[in-house]
Amino acid sequence: MKKLSILGSTGSIGTQTLDIVKNNPKEFKITGLTTNKNIELLKKQIIEFKPDAVAVMDKEKADELKKKVDVNVYSGIEGIIKIAKLNNADSVVNSLVGSIGVLPTIEAIKSKKNIALANKETLVTAGSIVMDEIKKNGVKLMPIDSEHSAIFQCLNGEKIEDVGKITITASGGPFRTFSKEQMEKATVKDALKHPTWAMGNKITIDSATLMNKGFEVIETHWLYGIDYEKIEVVVHPQSIIHSLVEFKDTSVIAQLGFPNMKIPIQYALSYPKRFNLNEKKLNLTEMKNLSFEKPDFEKFPCLNYAFDAGKAGGTMGAVLNAANEAAVYAFLDGKIRFLGISKLIKKMMNSHTTIKNPNLNEILMVDKKVKEKIKKLIESKDY
Amino acid sequence: MKKLSILGSTGSIGTQTLDIVKNNPKEFKITGLTTNKNIELLKKQIIEFKPDAVAVMDKEKADELKKKVDVNVYSGIEGIIKIAKLNNADSVVNSLVGSIGVLPTIEAIKSKKNIALANKETLVTAGSIVMDEIKKNGVKLMPIDSEHSAIFQCLNGEKIEDVGKITITASGGPFRTFSKEQMEKATVKDALKHPTWAMGNKITIDSATLMNKGFEVIETHWLYGIDYEKIEVVVHPQSIIHSLVEFKDTSVIAQLGFPNMKIPIQYALSYPKRFNLNEKKLNLTEMKNLSFEKPDFEKFPCLNYAFDAGKAGGTMGAVLNAANEAAVYAFLDGKIRFLGISKLIKKMMNSHTTIKNPNLNEILMVDKKVKEKIKKLIESKDY
Repeated sequence: MKKLSILGSTGSIGTQTLDIVKNNPKEFKITGLTTNKNIELLKKQIIEFKPDAVAVMDKEKADELKKKVDVNVYSGIEGIIKIAKLNNADSVVNSLVGSIGVLPTIEAIKSKKNIALANKETLVTAGSIVMDEIKKNGVKLMPIDSEHSAIFQCLNGEKIEDVGKITITASGGPFRTFSKEQMEKATVKDALKHPTWAMGNKITIDSATLMNKGFEVIETHWLYGIDYEKIEVVVHPQSIIHSLVEFKDTSVIAQLGFPNMKIPIQYALSYPKRFNLNEKKLNLTEMKNLSFEKPDFEKFPCLNYAFDAGKAGGTMGAVLNAANEAAVYAFLDGKIRFLGISKLIKKMMNSHTTIKNPNLNEILMVDKKVKEKIKKLIESKDY
Repeated sequence: MKKLSILGSTGSIGTQTLDIVKNNPKEFKITGLTTNKNIELLKKQIIEFKPDAVAVMDKEKADELKKKVDVNVYSGIEGIIKIAKLNNADSVVNSLVGSIGVLPTIEAIKSKKNIALANKETLVTAGSIVMDEIKKNGVKLMPIDSEHSAIFQCLNGEKIEDVGKITITASGGPFRTFSKEQMEKATVKDALKHPTWAMGNKITIDSATLMNKGFEVIETHWLYGIDYEKIEVVVHPQSIIHSLVEFKDTSVIAQLGFPNMKIPIQYALSYPKRFNLNEKKLNLTEMKNLSFEKPDFEKFPCLNYAFDAGKAGGTMGAVLNAANEAAVYAFLDGKIRFLGISKLIKKMMNSHTTIKNPNLNEILMVDKKVKEKIKKLIESKDY
C-alpha cells in the first residue's frame, strides 16, 4: 500500500488523483492534503480520506478550517512544505500550479519521498537542482502529464543513449487555426476553450500560447537527460498519440489513448504495476484519422522562447517561467491582451543575464524579481 | 558475437538478414545457409559470408553446387534440418516459406538454438508443439515480422495478464478498394501489386486475401499466449503503425516506422540491444495523415477462417495453412482464380474433423493430405 500526500488536492489533478485512490482502496492511503483556499472541498476530502494533516495556503482560510475539522491544519508555504515532508507518507503528488511548487518538491525529495510530479513549473524553474536531489536521495520521480507519461511508457527501461529523437505531440490549442489578427483580439473565454483537454485555467492559457508545450520540452530534457536537439514538437490536433520515442534503429514507440489525465495519474502511482481503469477505450476505427502538422513558431513564439531558455540553461528557465506565470495571470485578470504574454516573456528574457549553475536561492530570487518586474511593466504599460 | 544459421538465405528475408550481418560484422557470424534452388546467389553468399555448411532443397541443384564450392553442401529437407542443428550456431533464422519450415524449427529448438522466426506457417501449423518445445528447451523465440515485432516491442516486459487487447494492423492489401466483381477477375499481376510492402510472392498473395493477417492473428495467440477474443485486426492503409497493445488501464502502446523489414529483422537479432540502422526515418508531418478502418470480413473471408481455425485449435490450423498453401501456389501457377483460394480453404476446413492435442506426426500427416486433396479438387474442378 502506498501512502500519499497530495499537494493541491482540490485542483483538477488533485481531485482526479483522489478518484483513483477511491477506486483502489487497497493500494493507496492518503496521509496529507493541501489547498490554496478551497476549504469547502478540502473539508469534504478530509472526511472522506482521513489524512493525518492538511495545509491551506491562505492563512485566513486555514484558521477558518481549523474550527471545522478534527485534524492538524497547517498554513502558508511552510504548511505545504510540512505536508510534503509528512513522516508517514512514502510518495508526494505535487499538483500545485506555478513555481510555488519548487520548494515543496525539493523538501519532499530530501525527506526521501518518491515524487509524482504534475507541477510543470518545478522542472522548468529548477530542473538541475531537482534532478540532482533526486539522484542524491535515491528516490523516484514519476511524471504526471500525458506527454511525459507517454515518453516514460515508451522508454520502459530502454537506454536513453539508444534514443534518436523524442517527439512531443501538441493539440495546437484553441488558436491553432486562428490568424495573427484573430489572436490579437482573443478574449480570456476564447483562450480557455481547449479543443481536447479539460484542465485548470493557467495550463489552459499555457496551451493557447504553446508555452505549455515549451515547458514540456524543458521537462523532457530534465526528466530523461536528453539534448534539446533530439526533442521535437509535432501538432496532432486529435490528442490521441501523446508522444513518441524514436530509437537508433529507426523503430518508433508511441503511447496512445483518449485524452484523459487519469491514465498518466494512475500510471505514475501504480508503476511498475498497472491497475484497471474503467474509462473510455481508444477505438481507432471510430477515430478514422490521425493528423500531424508542424507547429507555427511565428504564431506561437513562446515555443521558441522555451527552446531558447532550455538551451541557455542556468537561471533562464526560471525567467521564462516567472515571466510567463505573471503574464498569464495578468491576462486572466484582464490586465493585458493575449499577445502581451509572449511580448512580456521576450522582454524579460532579453534583459536577463544568465547565471550559470545557480543555487536554489539564486533561482528563487530570479523568480521573485521577474514576477515583480512584470507587474511594474504591466502597470506602466511598458512592453 | 551471435552465430547464425539462416534457413532460406536467398529469399527476401534471408537476403535482408545478410545485409544486417554485413553492416554489423562484429556482432554476427554466419554458420549455415540454405536455399530452395537459387544456387547462383547461394554461391555468392558462401564466398562472402564463409558459412561452415549449406543446404539446397533441390537435390540436383545441390549436386551442381557441390562441384563449385569448397564447403559442405547438404540436400533436401534432411539437409536443411542439418543446417538448423549445426553445432556452432547459437541462433537460427527461419525464413523458409510454407509448412516445410515446421520440422527445421522444431529440430533447431531441440538443439537449443534461439529462433528468429519469419516462417509464419510454422506457428499456424504447429503452434502448440513449437511453443511447448520452446519452453522445454529454454530457448528464445523472436518474431521476424513487422506486426509481431511491434507487439514484442510494445510489451517490452509488461505482463500479458495486463493486456486488454492487441490490435494488429493490416495495409488492406492490393484489393482493399476492389469490388467483389473486380476481385473475381483479379490476375496474378494484380494480386502481386502490394501497396506498401515489397515481399516474396507467396506472402504477397496471402496479403491480397488477408490470410496473411489471419496467420498473424494465430501467431499472436501462440507467441504471446493471448486469447483470440483479445486480438483484433484494423486496416491502416499507410502501414506506419505496425501494431498496438492496449493495457488494462486503457493506455495503448504502439510501434511505428516506415514499412521496412530490416527493422524487425535486426531487432530480432539485436534484442535486448538495439543497433544503429541507416534507413529512412519516420516523419509524421510528412505523412500528414494516418487512417484506420474496419476490415471487410465478407470481401476477405480468409480472415474469418483464420479466427475460426485458431479458435478450433488442434489440427485445424494445419488444415487452414495447408489448404491455403496449395491454393495460393495453384493461383500463382494460373490454375485457379483468385476467389478460388478462399473457396478451397473453406471446403477443406468444413470437411475436417479436428484432432485435439495432436502430435507432430498427426499434424504433418494432415498437412500432407490436405495439400494432396486440394490438388485433386483443382484437377477435377470440384470446388
